[in-house]
Amino acid sequence: MEPLDLYILGCGSANPTQRHQPASQVLSTRGKMFMIDCGEGTQTRFARLGLSMKRVGHIFISHAHGDHCLGLPGLICTMSLLGRTSQLHIHGPQELEPFLQSALQLFCPNLEFQVLFHAVDTTRHQLIHHDRSIEVWSLPLRHRVPCCGFLFREKPALPHIRRDMIDMYEIPVSQINNIKAGMDWTMPDGTIIPNSRLTTPPSPTRSYAYCSDTSPLPSLIPLIEGVDLLFHEATFDKENEFRARQTFHSTTLEAAQTAKDAHVGQLVIGHYSSRMRNEEQMLNEARSIFPNTILSDEGKHISITPTTTL
Amino acid sequence: MEPLDLYILGCGSANPTQRHQPASQVLSTRGKMFMIDCGEGTQTRFARLGLSMKRVGHIFISHAHGDHCLGLPGLICTMSLLGRTSQLHIHGPQELEPFLQSALQLFCPNLEFQVLFHAVDTTRHQLIHHDRSIEVWSLPLRHRVPCCGFLFREKPALPHIRRDMIDMYEIPVSQINNIKAGMDWTMPDGTIIPNSRLTTPPSPTRSYAYCSDTSPLPSLIPLIEGVDLLFHEATFDKENEFRARQTFHSTTLEAAQTAKDAHVGQLVIGHYSSRMRNEEQMLNEARSIFPNTILSDEGKHISITPTTTL
Repeated sequence: MEPLDLYILGCGSANPTQRHQPASQVLSTRGKMFMIDCGEGTQTRFARLGLSMKRVGHIFISHAHGDHCLGLPGLICTMSLLGRTSQLHIHGPQELEPFLQSALQLFCPNLEFQVLFHAVDTTRHQLIHHDRSIEVWSLPLRHRVPCCGFLFREKPALPHIRRDMIDMYEIPVSQINNIKAGMDWTMPDGTIIPNSRLTTPPSPTRSYAYCSDTSPLPSLIPLIEGVDLLFHEATFDKENEFRARQTFHSTTLEAAQTAKDAHVGQLVIGHYSSRMRNEEQMLNEARSIFPNTILSDEGKHISITPTTTL
Repeated sequence: MEPLDLYILGCGSANPTQRHQPASQVLSTRGKMFMIDCGEGTQTRFARLGLSMKRVGHIFISHAHGDHCLGLPGLICTMSLLGRTSQLHIHGPQELEPFLQSALQLFCPNLEFQVLFHAVDTTRHQLIHHDRSIEVWSLPLRHRVPCCGFLFREKPALPHIRRDMIDMYEIPVSQINNIKAGMDWTMPDGTIIPNSRLTTPPSPTRSYAYCSDTSPLPSLIPLIEGVDLLFHEATFDKENEFRARQTFHSTTLEAAQTAKDAHVGQLVIGHYSSRMRNEEQMLNEARSIFPNTILSDEGKHISITPTTTL
């Protein structure tokens, strides 16, 4: 199975601390990288993680708060310095575009590559990008400004060919794609070999949902039902629920309850407020509701695997 | 004498490295901080150096390249989060203003403090700011875009009162300011005590010139004649002079020659290209022409003292 890897570049929130960087993640699969949010300083953390900017083709920005997108202009300037020529697609709320245009005009007026902005309607759950292997869907969230999360879902793969059966029945190479597509095989003597003897089931698909920043939102639950990995913001611990309400954020308990209600495989929490000092305690709070919870941290790498249904 | 302290927050150049951060410095004196340039991530280095953003009243931006100003929006957002109410003045080339306005409108539309932009004519050497104790002058530089350095010059201080003489001649407190201003003292019997007996000379004034980014520029020399400390960019070593010419930067030897020709007290070099790996060699190159040279580095603190004239 091809790896599907999540890298946490930053998991702090707006007020900078010595411990955490502003929001950014990279989802990597099949030689492609999808960036999710791009807080100030994100570009410097690429090299630190041994990642290459060249492979980033699409950047998804959840909302126009500085800690989620102020790293974009610098990142794009550096891509230009490094000689990039391939298109870069940026998906985000419409209000981001004038800022981005103004920054690019001033700081990199002679780009050798196209930056294509795709406005995302943050109020709707819809397919905003897909390629051969993956779909990306918007996830409406509830925050102080228009905001959405992103759901990455692998497309169903084709079944695996059983090489031993292909050899045994002397099936020509030209028929492999048909068999992968579900066709049975008819022998010269008329015997039909059912497709199920010639293939094994495809690898299971995997899914990742990124939900930051948001108040708890019941309408989100069905949209992320059963995802293998959920990143859900937990800006505050349970004691600071009143702050979460004031700022349209979530607590540890609320993130965990969302994970539980949506029957996700694993929960990773982050977007820690600068007021939060004890992340282990936050982890314990979340685990009291959803045991399979982990903490995000700068540099953390999570290999996303299919949830085993018992 | 009041301290006059320079802090190097970042001394790299456009292409980020693991070793250096983009350009930013803080000059601190008498409870005030002047920021010079503000590359991406500058805000995170304030706390690391134990400095308080509150004391920054004026920010001087040399030119509109990302590595010198992309930290501004995030810094201003964070000042707002920290509850700032006092005005913030930003001095820089005119073309910076639309970007700054666009960023502030989007990321911090409800600022509780005024951000006042003052356009600097980068082609002229003129006084752009002064307060009771310091003057700030623009220094035209030669770069790929409009660019100027900044000269900080303390205003001449008043002489020190000799407390012993004041007591001896029983001079009333109400006359102290007049005596500081140069007045002699007339005793009740008509005897005149000359001012020179009542005072000692004022502390010498100090000056700091920041020159980045620039090709070597003969017209700069008279403007920075005799400054106590000169920061001059040395983006490249002597071997890479051809790159310096291509990109309108300076080499170690050129920075040092400028320091020598302008008879400055001390030279600090920086704005290192990501291609440069051996800073000790760069230092040796500069010292071969101007021995009193030091390297800048993130977190470096330089206490600026008057140059002793032998």
